[in-house]
Amino acid sequence: MRLRHKPWAKDKLLAYPQYAVQHPEEWKGKWDQAFSGKGPIHIEVGTGKGRFITEMAKANPHINYIGIELQESVIVAALDRVIEAEVPNLKLMNLDASKLTDYFLKGEVERVYLNFSDPWPKTRHEKRRLTFKTFLKSYEEVLIPNGEIHFKTDNQGLFEYSLRSFSEYGMLLKFVSLDLHNSDYEGNIMTEYEEKFSSRGSRIFRSETQFKS
Amino acid sequence: MRLRHKPWAKDKLLAYPQYAVQHPEEWKGKWDQAFSGKGPIHIEVGTGKGRFITEMAKANPHINYIGIELQESVIVAALDRVIEAEVPNLKLMNLDASKLTDYFLKGEVERVYLNFSDPWPKTRHEKRRLTFKTFLKSYEEVLIPNGEIHFKTDNQGLFEYSLRSFSEYGMLLKFVSLDLHNSDYEGNIMTEYEEKFSSRGSRIFRSETQFKS
Repeated sequence: MRLRHKPWAKDKLLAYPQYAVQHPEEWKGKWDQAFSGKGPIHIEVGTGKGRFITEMAKANPHINYIGIELQESVIVAALDRVIEAEVPNLKLMNLDASKLTDYFLKGEVERVYLNFSDPWPKTRHEKRRLTFKTFLKSYEEVLIPNGEIHFKTDNQGLFEYSLRSFSEYGMLLKFVSLDLHNSDYEGNIMTEYEEKFSSRGSRIFRSETQFKS
Repeated sequence: MRLRHKPWAKDKLLAYPQYAVQHPEEWKGKWDQAFSGKGPIHIEVGTGKGRFITEMAKANPHINYIGIELQESVIVAALDRVIEAEVPNLKLMNLDASKLTDYFLKGEVERVYLNFSDPWPKTRHEKRRLTFKTFLKSYEEVLIPNGEIHFKTDNQGLFEYSLRSFSEYGMLLKFVSLDLHNSDYEGNIMTEYEEKFSSRGSRIFRSETQFKS
């Protein structure tokens, strides 16, 4: 995604604390109270412009969603969408996903979504891939026992890498589709990126994996 | 594969006992003596017309290969190829792969190859797929510790199923390619089927998985 510097982004995030959580570490262990209704928490790491998580929040009002995105200039686009959607079960956090334990207790998150994460194709950048073992560890540290990662990408190399990485970590592969849009999988909610690239003929890969602890 | 009844097939197999093993149970525990040279044993389950295993045997003279094929009318085609190749490190067995423990001791086999196995797409036929858990168990029972299955198919449904089945069995995914012929994988030996269908544009999937015991 091309990034444009948006000097006003920080102020805009500060103007909507009900959607863009300002001090997430203060909610650690009590996220239940951050949302108006109780429910399991699902997070999306690398939420981008927020279409996926906003649609998920609308479709599943009994689940509380948190979209995490490091890029300030990108998350403000998600914020616009969240403001417009006016759903009580959706928040955004502008921070680095490698420090999830700063914000959540073990067991506070029920599911992690990863959608069209940066493939970082060069071997020397492996550690930056959101399915590298250190990230898997950080997800496991906040997830419930047997918590799941739901992962979509159109990048074949990243998907191959991630299947191996999940397996090496000892995760169970519960679902895999090697051509999601030509499968009988129902209820897929597309990201902005997914709609654009699948319409150009890209194959979409999807997996659901489960931690064994 | 379309099967044609070949009434002469049995006699032909009997005429070449040096290639088509007649009483494999008698070699159990002493396969080393069945081959002229010592070496690890790799088996292909569902060897079809035998092109893959014959080429592998030619390319790797230090490894002893056994091609297993249930269909008499198919394995005779493999026999022709083996006779022509005149390699000492290759044998065929006309039998059912679900009873491997009748023919091999635990640890006698170093690797199992599965190439373009019958996909058995109907759910009620799941048990017949060569990557169903009962088959995985029969491979594990004859393989060395940490033995591997090397698997290729053009059938997306079978590949998705097999990745899940390997994972559920607790196997480690060491290698996966979701488009083998457009990857940097070197040294691929094609089966008859693979050449035919990949030339028609079919994508070839390949995995290497390892038992953890």
